Amino acid sequence: MDLIAETIAAIRPLDEVAMSAARAHQDRLTKPRGALGVLEELSVRLAGLAGACPPPMPEPAAVAVFAADHGVHAQGVTPWPQEVTGQMVQNFLAGGAVVNAFARQTGAEVRVVDVGMKTDLPAADGLVIRKTAHGTADMTREPAMTADQVRAAVEAGITTARELVAAGYRCLITGDMGIANTTASAALIALFTGRAPEDVTGHGTGIDERTHAHKIKIVRSAMDRARAELDGAAAADPLAVLAQVGGFEHAAIAGFILGAAAERVPVVLDGVIAGAAALAAVALAPDVRDSCVAGHRSAEPGHAAALRHLELRPLIDLDLRLGEGTGALLALPLVQSAVRVLHDVATFDSAGVADKA
Amino acid sequence: MDLIAETIAAIRPLDEVAMSAARAHQDRLTKPRGALGVLEELSVRLAGLAGACPPPMPEPAAVAVFAADHGVHAQGVTPWPQEVTGQMVQNFLAGGAVVNAFARQTGAEVRVVDVGMKTDLPAADGLVIRKTAHGTADMTREPAMTADQVRAAVEAGITTARELVAAGYRCLITGDMGIANTTASAALIALFTGRAPEDVTGHGTGIDERTHAHKIKIVRSAMDRARAELDGAAAADPLAVLAQVGGFEHAAIAGFILGAAAERVPVVLDGVIAGAAALAAVALAPDVRDSCVAGHRSAEPGHAAALRHLELRPLIDLDLRLGEGTGALLALPLVQSAVRVLHDVATFDSAGVADKA
Repeated sequence: MDLIAETIAAIRPLDEVAMSAARAHQDRLTKPRGALGVLEELSVRLAGLAGACPPPMPEPAAVAVFAADHGVHAQGVTPWPQEVTGQMVQNFLAGGAVVNAFARQTGAEVRVVDVGMKTDLPAADGLVIRKTAHGTADMTREPAMTADQVRAAVEAGITTARELVAAGYRCLITGDMGIANTTASAALIALFTGRAPEDVTGHGTGIDERTHAHKIKIVRSAMDRARAELDGAAAADPLAVLAQVGGFEHAAIAGFILGAAAERVPVVLDGVIAGAAALAAVALAPDVRDSCVAGHRSAEPGHAAALRHLELRPLIDLDLRLGEGTGALLALPLVQSAVRVLHDVATFDSAGVADKA
Repeated sequence: MDLIAETIAAIRPLDEVAMSAARAHQDRLTKPRGALGVLEELSVRLAGLAGACPPPMPEPAAVAVFAADHGVHAQGVTPWPQEVTGQMVQNFLAGGAVVNAFARQTGAEVRVVDVGMKTDLPAADGLVIRKTAHGTADMTREPAMTADQVRAAVEAGITTARELVAAGYRCLITGDMGIANTTASAALIALFTGRAPEDVTGHGTGIDERTHAHKIKIVRSAMDRARAELDGAAAADPLAVLAQVGGFEHAAIAGFILGAAAERVPVVLDGVIAGAAALAAVALAPDVRDSCVAGHRSAEPGHAAALRHLELRPLIDLDLRLGEGTGALLALPLVQSAVRVLHDVATFDSAGVADKA
């Protein structure tokens, strides 16, 4: 069995016994029942994922920033030069980006994984090279990736998740860097959810209205080409959809999510790129949805569509549209706090607090 | 000049020069302009509060949990016995409550301030006694507090804020404990915002529909009595409104907010009790609004009404309804992350990253 099939086969539903135990324990804690709202449900889900109540604390945490370039950049979908992908990765490695600042604040580790950048960077601390190609092909003209390339990128994501868990990380966080990757995300989200391009294509890093209208056309053109080639097989073969219109970072993040789920470690999703990748992962193995925590909802309309399709409620909703893993890192203390309640909080009995009449 | 007048006189508008510097600095950082959404605006506001760019990191942080009892408890507005106020305070001091778990997770200190509990607790580490009376009077029959009592409680809040800032804390967080205090909050919010009791009275810790209907009647009855006594003076005298239908913890939190603003230190507001208190503080000194960060929006309808009136956007919205300071503590890492961007993140120039075309 290959790595992808083996990983999918290892993914199991949540453990109902541990979830019942978590629910019962929440009801004994010194607080009104249900008073922690969404965090209470989250703690129950993470108990089910770990198969234990309380589940292990989701720490230490690591964010894997998957970096890659996109052939569709040639179509003028963004005012940012393609070199910025590599320049920002250098910035991550130097500790100067927002993802680094947020990781320091929340106590997470940053790893950068080159899964398809045009630039070849010199070896550096914190940089892992798992490159499949030097950028995707232009999805408006041909499939962005070959079948072999997409499998290699998914495997790179699985391997990254496995290595981080083996190194002791107990919460994985998705990050991304790739100029033009919101364009590929929009095409993926439209194909996986059945929404129209104009409903899921946003302003990305902040493009003007003219570029936005052009970006929608490009997404539609890529989708039309892809649909003709897929010939109705979209639902049946998520890897083929990824190959048609995805990026190497989308494929890798899909693998990263699968890998985390197989290890029964929670994965906190960042924004629209992670949302698009999660749609592919869930299409490959529906149970992975339960190991995913939606860190935030970004300003990109496609992200809201992806989260609705995934039936995931985001923990944070602050009009962020940066990527890199920043929105997910902000949610990390919330995830940790939710689990900590099951570890630390006294019961009515143990604390000598009267329950309500 | 007395402590309240002196504190109000020390409150100044935000520093426009520091805000402009923060905006300009945000635009030079290695991220698309505006990509941090609400957190970018927050960082600008905190620069204006500190009068410096970057503003100091909002750490260390301390949550002050103001505890008090309520005469209106006699009207059957909650199934929880009144003894639970003191029992939960003992739980806070023993480190067993959710506020303690969240404070540990986010690195904040917990202080409990008795501003009007029925019970007299023995001296303990982390407990400050600033008691004005053993609980308020029943607001359906008479003013909850006398004019002297309300001033003493506001002063207790101001003194608490001053002492924490003098001890080196650079971010203050509001917390509360008081069985029946959502009832007093609803009456305060209705009087300060002009909303009807049924629009701002919620299910608190989780009451049934019959108790909820009764609670609305009680709030209306207290408001009618208070309005007759205030004789149209509500807008003119926020302390009189607090005296009529507030709790000692509402008065103390209003003072705590004023004290933080006078010291130009941000204060993160918790839920509906803090929202009601902030309405009083803003009515006393409109500029304090700018030193307030709405930590979250609770499930209580009155809280949403208070936040709209204050024009504060909550950082977190997860159906929490616990109080104690728990929702505000969850927002603390977001506030710290927002400021950290101004300290840590590289500029396009310094990082050698190309700007967009």
